[in-house]
Amino acid sequence: MSEQIYGNNAIIELLEKDPKKIEKVLIEKGYHSDKIGKILDLCKLNSVRFDILPSLVSYQRTGEKSGAVAFITSFSYYEFNDLDLGLVKNLVILDEIEDPHNFGAIIRSAAASGTEAVIIPERNSAQVTDTVINVSAGSIFKIKISRVKNIANCIEILKKNGFWVVGADMDGSSDYKNFDYTVRSAVIIGNEGKGLRRLVKEKCDDIVRIDLENGVESLNASVAAALILFERRRKIPNRYS
Amino acid sequence: MSEQIYGNNAIIELLEKDPKKIEKVLIEKGYHSDKIGKILDLCKLNSVRFDILPSLVSYQRTGEKSGAVAFITSFSYYEFNDLDLGLVKNLVILDEIEDPHNFGAIIRSAAASGTEAVIIPERNSAQVTDTVINVSAGSIFKIKISRVKNIANCIEILKKNGFWVVGADMDGSSDYKNFDYTVRSAVIIGNEGKGLRRLVKEKCDDIVRIDLENGVESLNASVAAALILFERRRKIPNRYS
Repeated sequence: MSEQIYGNNAIIELLEKDPKKIEKVLIEKGYHSDKIGKILDLCKLNSVRFDILPSLVSYQRTGEKSGAVAFITSFSYYEFNDLDLGLVKNLVILDEIEDPHNFGAIIRSAAASGTEAVIIPERNSAQVTDTVINVSAGSIFKIKISRVKNIANCIEILKKNGFWVVGADMDGSSDYKNFDYTVRSAVIIGNEGKGLRRLVKEKCDDIVRIDLENGVESLNASVAAALILFERRRKIPNRYS
Repeated sequence: MSEQIYGNNAIIELLEKDPKKIEKVLIEKGYHSDKIGKILDLCKLNSVRFDILPSLVSYQRTGEKSGAVAFITSFSYYEFNDLDLGLVKNLVILDEIEDPHNFGAIIRSAAASGTEAVIIPERNSAQVTDTVINVSAGSIFKIKISRVKNIANCIEILKKNGFWVVGADMDGSSDYKNFDYTVRSAVIIGNEGKGLRRLVKEKCDDIVRIDLENGVESLNASVAAALILFERRRKIPNRYS
């Protein structure tokens, strides 16, 4: 079954970056907006099939009426072996994140913070679904998403290629603001309930924590990820300016 | 109908802070953990009614099996007029946040960043439900949640009491890292799709933005809120150390 994309920004993004992935676009009759106009133009420009229907109620699952839905063939992950480890500098690894909302939000924060790839394991992890794509608000098409069989092996390869591997854990030995993010780094975010697995934790070069007030024990995984990824971005401003 | 709380941390928090709110606690037979032990002890200590049942499957709606469910009477908001505006220093206002997951995650980040109260409007806003309580992972009981009829009036009152009112918007005139958070401040986060309303925006003393990479247009509302709230916390470290 194909995935449905119902955010206009996500559809525009996909039409610009990878129109071949789109099977068809449905547009609601009488729905006019700049974005719908742009979607129509891009469909024509890229020879993407589109239909205009009287109503899209049966397709759109959110409260947001956006006037368009795109159907895509299954999502293609980026091969880890194809990542040029001599060239990329800022990675994030998700060690068994389960919630698709967290996964989508982290992808969005990763893209927005200049992270170059998101690495996930093939098992025990949320995979890319239409929920993830829609929560990412189209930013999933601006970043590489790569799946690996084994996170521990992946860490070893990254280390051999000069990466510093930084785990996030509430028991971390140093404050997340103190890590030297000017190096090439891979930040690891653990499972929502269980955190980082022991084996993964042991392979990290550093474990950073986020100090919290009021006796709060932990943050939402996507919030913790965003704080660390934007801290990294802050420390290497020249790369992006 | 009463609300269900199914996170063990949330149940413990509530038993410690406000046991009178709990109608009863259900515990799964044969389920042993330190947290369940603590829940039982706190129920006895505070004379909270509890039952031990063979299975809680019909009560627990998440994948997480935690062994306990608490039922509470309806949530009580904190009266805005009872907030001591001479004493509190760090507020957050949610201008029509609709998604209960965002609302819960923002409450958690607010409590964790030393924010003293979360203010929401009575209308056109997510209200406190069991989803919100559970997403907040119990932190909702560590912070004041206040409802007001009119956000614009609320801003006026805060300004008269010496607060700087800072809106978050992608078109903001200054970077969120440059605001002087050592003053008493109320940060305003707008609706997920529409952002801040014009009237609210006009009343702000400053509008801050978060610069993003890769052409990403905006962040998830709870991520944007967390970045700004933790930036405020960073600028006033002595208050919390």
